[in-house]
Amino acid sequence: MRGAVLYGPRDVRFEERDIPKIIKPTDAIIRLSATCVCGSDLWPYRGLQPIAQPTPMGHEYCGIVEEVGREVRNIKPGQFVIGSFATSDNTCIICRDGYQSSCVQREFMLGAQASLLRVPLADGTLVATSDLPPKELIPSLLATSDVLGTGWFAADAANVKPGSTVVVVGDGAVGLLGVLSAKQMGAKRIIAMSRNPSRQNLAREFGATDIVTERGDEGVARIKDLTDGIGADSVLECVGTQESMMQAIHSTRPGGYIGYVGVPHGVSLDGEHLFFAHVHLHGGPAPVRRYLPELIKLVLDEKINPGKVFDLTLPLDQVAEGYRAMDERRAIKTLLHPNGTR
Amino acid sequence: MRGAVLYGPRDVRFEERDIPKIIKPTDAIIRLSATCVCGSDLWPYRGLQPIAQPTPMGHEYCGIVEEVGREVRNIKPGQFVIGSFATSDNTCIICRDGYQSSCVQREFMLGAQASLLRVPLADGTLVATSDLPPKELIPSLLATSDVLGTGWFAADAANVKPGSTVVVVGDGAVGLLGVLSAKQMGAKRIIAMSRNPSRQNLAREFGATDIVTERGDEGVARIKDLTDGIGADSVLECVGTQESMMQAIHSTRPGGYIGYVGVPHGVSLDGEHLFFAHVHLHGGPAPVRRYLPELIKLVLDEKINPGKVFDLTLPLDQVAEGYRAMDERRAIKTLLHPNGTR
Repeated sequence: MRGAVLYGPRDVRFEERDIPKIIKPTDAIIRLSATCVCGSDLWPYRGLQPIAQPTPMGHEYCGIVEEVGREVRNIKPGQFVIGSFATSDNTCIICRDGYQSSCVQREFMLGAQASLLRVPLADGTLVATSDLPPKELIPSLLATSDVLGTGWFAADAANVKPGSTVVVVGDGAVGLLGVLSAKQMGAKRIIAMSRNPSRQNLAREFGATDIVTERGDEGVARIKDLTDGIGADSVLECVGTQESMMQAIHSTRPGGYIGYVGVPHGVSLDGEHLFFAHVHLHGGPAPVRRYLPELIKLVLDEKINPGKVFDLTLPLDQVAEGYRAMDERRAIKTLLHPNGTR
Repeated sequence: MRGAVLYGPRDVRFEERDIPKIIKPTDAIIRLSATCVCGSDLWPYRGLQPIAQPTPMGHEYCGIVEEVGREVRNIKPGQFVIGSFATSDNTCIICRDGYQSSCVQREFMLGAQASLLRVPLADGTLVATSDLPPKELIPSLLATSDVLGTGWFAADAANVKPGSTVVVVGDGAVGLLGVLSAKQMGAKRIIAMSRNPSRQNLAREFGATDIVTERGDEGVARIKDLTDGIGADSVLECVGTQESMMQAIHSTRPGGYIGYVGVPHGVSLDGEHLFFAHVHLHGGPAPVRRYLPELIKLVLDEKINPGKVFDLTLPLDQVAEGYRAMDERRAIKTLLHPNGTR
């Protein structure tokens, strides 16, 4: 089997890897229908998050179950399944409380940019659809696995409610799907921060009512102009840099909420500054498993079309170009088709 | 009139000050029934928060209205009133949302350690009782002005609900009243972190079910032992140091809530660490005005006795000793009686 392996900065290779096998009786093996490149994959790709050794890449996936371990009860061979980038038993106290991405048995998935994938804790990690979904819905179903689930968590953590005024910091795929999520949750006003015309267009299509192109102090001033001078009710931080986090904090009204889902890199928060900002702050790895049933239903009912964030589709063997296009911001997000690859 | 003025580290003087007068038509002047020393007064007292000039001290107060400005509508001379340490118009968007301590017209009160006090925005800042309260309830009513309101906000920000498991970091008056607040909100288990026998006793009296004396890694390990290995649902951070904030974060389960009300001094939070801790973080200056009606009622109905945190009562002219006793942790909190002082 061949799959994507990162060797170092901007060096991702499509090469032979061991065929995944059932290791624990709670595992499943799935044949991928589609996978993709995540914004978070770009951190190690850019060398901003060093890797110790060649690392199989990819953690977003959906596909057909090939085989299950002997303790798997609910997931069956032949089913179409979608799973989270974080495994979960879905039974521990933390899972029952809806924080499956911090499950006591959590592992972060790796190696999904391949044709076959081992998924641990299959019963708790995967959600099966009742029928095989139509092909044209595969991109949107794939999106639920991480990028939509993460944008959804950002909006949920930011307490978006019907009538809310929302700011979305970051115009990557997560930020754009944060816009879609805020719209679904009934936000009245959604201000997307973006300088890129094609991303602005998609933001508008997903429900953005205003676009702010300014950044830093000017960006904050513009947000204040649009929010009675006090800031937004809810701010989604979908980048993970010091600048984006400060943008988020300064764009939130006192008593407002920040949902932050960009993995922070080099972010440091001053306690006294945060104290007087008076904001609610919540974030972390999105508990996608909590949202999967609802999001899958929204996709199958064709209420949402999150797959639109995939503006580049490549066969899996061109994965390196998929990374390059995202790194250079030529593509918002790359979908990879394993069809025909072994 | 004489009042407390801080000149520098450990140099608080009781000296002649100008008699406060109505400056704006929305002001009121009140004659204090009681005032006190706040844990936050100790930061500048200890030189950890430098002052630029001699500063009138004190921001916790209750008393009888002497005079009101011509635009004051609801507060009348002769009424007994309690107000927050932060002034508020109680009409702006932020106030209406319950964040009066970030009111667009907010000022932080100063100079309440005196016999008379000017209160700006009297209608929005003060709450009057329907009758003059009995003398023995004055300490508890005074407590609602800041220390109880702040402990209450910590518990509210930490999402304490019926059945919650709660940790309180800090055994100062705010922490102890955080215990009382958590109990009122229906917490099932309340773990107070304290090494001081008299404070442990008061914590137990206020509702603590467990006492943890360990700190740092040992403290965290002990909390985990008591919480199924995962941490508490709600943690109240009532100190404001790096150590106490880390104690709070490490004591909270993934998906749990931290309410932090100790003004952070030298606290820095690493974004990635906070992200993977997966906690909710909310705090800031307590919006006491939001809670005052409810807290005053609880006191008048004798459902709670927060005045017990005052374990030292002095005439106002001995204010310097009041500070010393708290600085040396001989007293939890000092109540000051202006009676007889001019």
